[in-house]
Amino acid sequence: MSAAKSKKKSKIWTIEESQTRSRLDEIATEEPLEIRLIYPEQTLAVTMRTPGADFDLVAGFLYSEGGITSREDISKMSYCVDPDIDGEQRQNIINVALKSGLTFDLKRLERHFFMTSACGVCGKASIESLKIREIPQISSDFNINTEIIYRLNDQLKLAQGLFSATGGLHAAALFDAQGKLLKLREDVGRHNALDKLIGSAVLTNELPLTHHIVMVSGRSSFEILQKSIVAGVPVLCAVSAPSSLAVEIAQAFNITLIGFLRGRRFNVYSGIERIKLAS
Amino acid sequence: MSAAKSKKKSKIWTIEESQTRSRLDEIATEEPLEIRLIYPEQTLAVTMRTPGADFDLVAGFLYSEGGITSREDISKMSYCVDPDIDGEQRQNIINVALKSGLTFDLKRLERHFFMTSACGVCGKASIESLKIREIPQISSDFNINTEIIYRLNDQLKLAQGLFSATGGLHAAALFDAQGKLLKLREDVGRHNALDKLIGSAVLTNELPLTHHIVMVSGRSSFEILQKSIVAGVPVLCAVSAPSSLAVEIAQAFNITLIGFLRGRRFNVYSGIERIKLAS
Repeated sequence: MSAAKSKKKSKIWTIEESQTRSRLDEIATEEPLEIRLIYPEQTLAVTMRTPGADFDLVAGFLYSEGGITSREDISKMSYCVDPDIDGEQRQNIINVALKSGLTFDLKRLERHFFMTSACGVCGKASIESLKIREIPQISSDFNINTEIIYRLNDQLKLAQGLFSATGGLHAAALFDAQGKLLKLREDVGRHNALDKLIGSAVLTNELPLTHHIVMVSGRSSFEILQKSIVAGVPVLCAVSAPSSLAVEIAQAFNITLIGFLRGRRFNVYSGIERIKLAS
Repeated sequence: MSAAKSKKKSKIWTIEESQTRSRLDEIATEEPLEIRLIYPEQTLAVTMRTPGADFDLVAGFLYSEGGITSREDISKMSYCVDPDIDGEQRQNIINVALKSGLTFDLKRLERHFFMTSACGVCGKASIESLKIREIPQISSDFNINTEIIYRLNDQLKLAQGLFSATGGLHAAALFDAQGKLLKLREDVGRHNALDKLIGSAVLTNELPLTHHIVMVSGRSSFEILQKSIVAGVPVLCAVSAPSSLAVEIAQAFNITLIGFLRGRRFNVYSGIERIKLAS
C-alpha cells in the first residue's frame, strides 16, 4: 500500500484590497503517523506528518532517537494491513520489527533526552545527555568554499518548487562536498523533514554523512542539531536563526553551524575553520 | 526566583562576498522546561522553550491539554526551590499544584489526542478526539473588517521588533475586535508562543476569547488550531500556510482561518462570512 497524498485541494478565497476571488488551492497534507513496534508490541510515537517518504521518516526517527544504528537493525517495516482497520487509517500506521535481540528504550524517548540524572534539567544537561549516548565529536576535516555555500539556498528553493506548490512545507536537503544536491525531503514538521532525509540515508547505507552538507529551510534548534550530530554531519546550514542551544551543541560537537543563509551572505556560529573564502 | 534570560550573546562571523567580520550577536535562548505536578508527583512534560513568561506557558499548556479550565484550577505554581538542585536548573523546573480533587490524565497527553479508540489514527480521528473533549463549535457572531486584518501583521512585526533582536523567535499575538494589540508572546517554539499567549489570558481570567483575533508568525497546523478552539478564538491569522488538518479543524469548529497575511492581501480557508470588505 502506498502512502496517502501529500497535498489536498481546498476551496479558498483570496482577498486583496477590496477584491475577493475564490479558487481551488493545494494545501500540504497533515495526518498522524503511528510508529508501532511489533515486538514487544507497543506504540513508539505518533507524529503529525505529511504523507510521503514514510519509511524514511520511521528509519530516521529510530536512528536519531538511538533505536537503531544501521539499516540492518530493521528487519521489517510495512504499512498496517489489519483488515479491521479501514484503508485510510492503515496508511497512517507503520509496523516495525527490529533485528532479533534489539530493544528500544521508550523511557529515553519519554524524556526526550533533555534531562540526565546527573545534571538535571538545563541546556548543559541536554548536551551531556548526548555525550552519554557516546555520540562522537564531528572530526571531519573537510573544507567548504564560500561559493558552494552561496549556491545552496537557490538549489534548495528550486528543488522545493518542483516538489511542492503549497508553500506550507519545511525542507531538509543533503548536498555533497561539491555542493551538489543529493536529496531533499519535505514535511509540515521541521523535525520530520530532517528525519526523512537522514532516514533515507540510513536505508541506502550512506551514513555517516561525514563529507556532506545538510540544509534546513527554517531555524536550527536543539533537535535539528541532535539529529545532525547523530548522523555525523559536519556542516549544517539554515535559512533562519539558530537557538542558543543549537549554537552550544554545534560548539560542543565541532559542527560548522551556518544561519541566515540568504543570497551571497550568511552567519557562522561555530566551526568557521571549515569555511574557505573564495579567492 | 525569576526566569533565565531570553537572549544570550554569542560571537559570530558574518561572511558576505569575500569579506568576513566578527561581532557579538544576540541569540534566542533555548532551554528545557520541566512541568512537574506536585501531587501525585510526576513530570507532566519537558519542553524546549525560551525562558520568559514561564508561568503563562505552564498555564497555557495545562489549559490547552485539558488539564484545567480556569485559573482557579491551579492552586500553586512556582519555580523549583530544592536546595539540592543548582540555581540554573531551578529556573527550568516549575512545580504546579492543581485544585484539590483535580487530576490530570497523562495517558491522553502521551498519545497527544491524535488517536481515538473509535476512529483509529487519521485526521478525522484527530478531529473526533477534540469533539470527544466536548469542545464546542465557535459560535461567535463577530465580524471583522478587511482594513483591520491588513494592519495586524505590521503591528505584530513592530511589537516583535521591540521584544526581540534575535530574529529567531516565533510570536503569537492577541488582538481585540477593533484590531488593537492586547498582548504578544514569543518563543523558539511555535506552540509554546501560543501556549504563553493563551496561558496569560487564563491567568488574567480573560477566557474564552470569543471576540478576539489571534495571529501567529508562522504556519498553522493541527496543534495551533487545537489550542485556538479550546480558547474559543473565532479568527486565527497566520503569516504562512495552513496544513490540511488545520483547514479541516477550522471548518469543523467554525473558525475563520486566514493564511499568507502579508500587506494588503490574505487567503481565507474557512469562515469567510465573518469577513467584511471595507466599503
